Amino acid sequence: MSQSKREIKTIAVIGTGVIGASWTALFLARGLKVLVTDPAPNAETNLNTYLEAQWPTMGQTGLSEGASLSNYTFVSSLDGYFNQIDFIQENGPERVEFKRTLFAHLDEKLPSDVIIASSSSGIPSSQYASACQKHPERVLVGHPFNPPHLIPLVEVVPHPGTDRETVVPRAIEFYKSIGKKPALIEKETPGFVVNRLQAAVLMEAYSLVSRGVISAADLDTAMTSSLGLRWALNGPFLLNALAGGGSFQHFIEHLGPALKSWHDDMQKHTFKMSEQDIQDLSKSVEPMFQQADLETIQRERDDALSRIIDMKDRSSSLH
Amino acid sequence: MSQSKREIKTIAVIGTGVIGASWTALFLARGLKVLVTDPAPNAETNLNTYLEAQWPTMGQTGLSEGASLSNYTFVSSLDGYFNQIDFIQENGPERVEFKRTLFAHLDEKLPSDVIIASSSSGIPSSQYASACQKHPERVLVGHPFNPPHLIPLVEVVPHPGTDRETVVPRAIEFYKSIGKKPALIEKETPGFVVNRLQAAVLMEAYSLVSRGVISAADLDTAMTSSLGLRWALNGPFLLNALAGGGSFQHFIEHLGPALKSWHDDMQKHTFKMSEQDIQDLSKSVEPMFQQADLETIQRERDDALSRIIDMKDRSSSLH
Repeated sequence: MSQSKREIKTIAVIGTGVIGASWTALFLARGLKVLVTDPAPNAETNLNTYLEAQWPTMGQTGLSEGASLSNYTFVSSLDGYFNQIDFIQENGPERVEFKRTLFAHLDEKLPSDVIIASSSSGIPSSQYASACQKHPERVLVGHPFNPPHLIPLVEVVPHPGTDRETVVPRAIEFYKSIGKKPALIEKETPGFVVNRLQAAVLMEAYSLVSRGVISAADLDTAMTSSLGLRWALNGPFLLNALAGGGSFQHFIEHLGPALKSWHDDMQKHTFKMSEQDIQDLSKSVEPMFQQADLETIQRERDDALSRIIDMKDRSSSLH
Repeated sequence: MSQSKREIKTIAVIGTGVIGASWTALFLARGLKVLVTDPAPNAETNLNTYLEAQWPTMGQTGLSEGASLSNYTFVSSLDGYFNQIDFIQENGPERVEFKRTLFAHLDEKLPSDVIIASSSSGIPSSQYASACQKHPERVLVGHPFNPPHLIPLVEVVPHPGTDRETVVPRAIEFYKSIGKKPALIEKETPGFVVNRLQAAVLMEAYSLVSRGVISAADLDTAMTSSLGLRWALNGPFLLNALAGGGSFQHFIEHLGPALKSWHDDMQKHTFKMSEQDIQDLSKSVEPMFQQADLETIQRERDDALSRIIDMKDRSSSLH
């Protein structure tokens, strides 16, 4: 790829499901122009409804100069627009063949310095970059977390052939410029990083509840009243260093054996995920939510999320 | 134990290290009287210094009626005070023999309806309740998280002989009354619950960084910008149900196989915690903290923690 200084002003969003629609809201709020496409029936109407509903929330978190809800154009195809596009955020179906065909076409048509990022967490980009004949080195994953317009993280995951000199730093820079927190995943790993960390917790949570050690409700309380609060503000390594009086090494030398012994015990009791395990666990967990007002929970959660993120942005040391 | 309606007004805090001192600050802020004892040299002076420094922070989070910094008495021994004590919070050294001798003595001297709770996470109470000749059924663990005056969770862990009818509910009720979030751990399990969940994340984090998948700094960013934010507000089971459109079962039936496949991959790459592993990992992590201003980080973190907890307390659905 040429050492492009292409300014990123117009994004093409492919696919307007939950993730693509949320990206669109974020790009618009950051003052970008967006070309949107999705072949699903009613996609344009649904996106419009979503954006109208979401816009006041975007306003609360602060709109960038030039931000406007009218800065997007829904097009039936990107063909004919390739010269207007500075960056692609793809959110299509999680099917390898679909992505291979799509990426090969995008690669053929787009100027060489346009980065093509996929939101996919399920399929590493090596599996479809290999279909690109011209510039597979501008393909990577930019995996957001739901909802992308609120949760700051983007996992930036190059494939082995992605250009590390230009493409990776430009993608990271772009995501930072719109207020995201990019984390670079150096190697394609199943689940990348965050889904693995989440799975580590969930598998042990399922095991503990299945074994009658704790109720699902009390496990949720335990998380939201301790680890969750800490991890919202300080990452695991920083917390280790703080617990070690400023030294990670001091922490792991002293606490490592205990961590390992608990982990060994967990491995003895791994949740097997059999049909029967799933049925039994569901039977004990499901009643928790029968009276729950999920709409209120989500609204209050999203509001609290915005305020915590704002609080962190204004601090000198939290990030 | 008799069906006591003993009102809990005076707490005895045994041991004034970090945990015991923090418990003392919290009890005082909640308007309780505290008898404190610790045989260490300078323990009384150190506690006094700590409490004076901490009191303004306690004031920010709101003092209960009657709260006063002068409501504690440092005593060289609890002997002679046993009739004044309504609840014991023990924070002594993590040595079984020490605890067995201490708990046997407390059990012999204290009225039968005084609950004896240990802050210990390392030694389950079955190992020292068995030394109590009179009322082992009033012994349990009340394990806080550092610092207890800020982090709400208390893991309430009965041993097999703890009275479930009276003692467990009274301990839970007491911790709730001082603003804590108790979670009941039904069975003594290595690490209880939260240290296991934490170990699950840490062991995978150590593995990922050791394998060069992600830097420690980016792993911290990933956590604080996604999972941590979510888990501060909603527990893992509620989040599963939300992702499943209100149904946990729907979630686990669809996502369970992916979770299991990531977990299987993690088990293939478990961090071994050998001397060499620890040295190598420390070498890559330690530079992260060489420029860090840990005092500022902790102060801003504690301030943000208080504000998040206050925000949650004022919401109708977050807890």
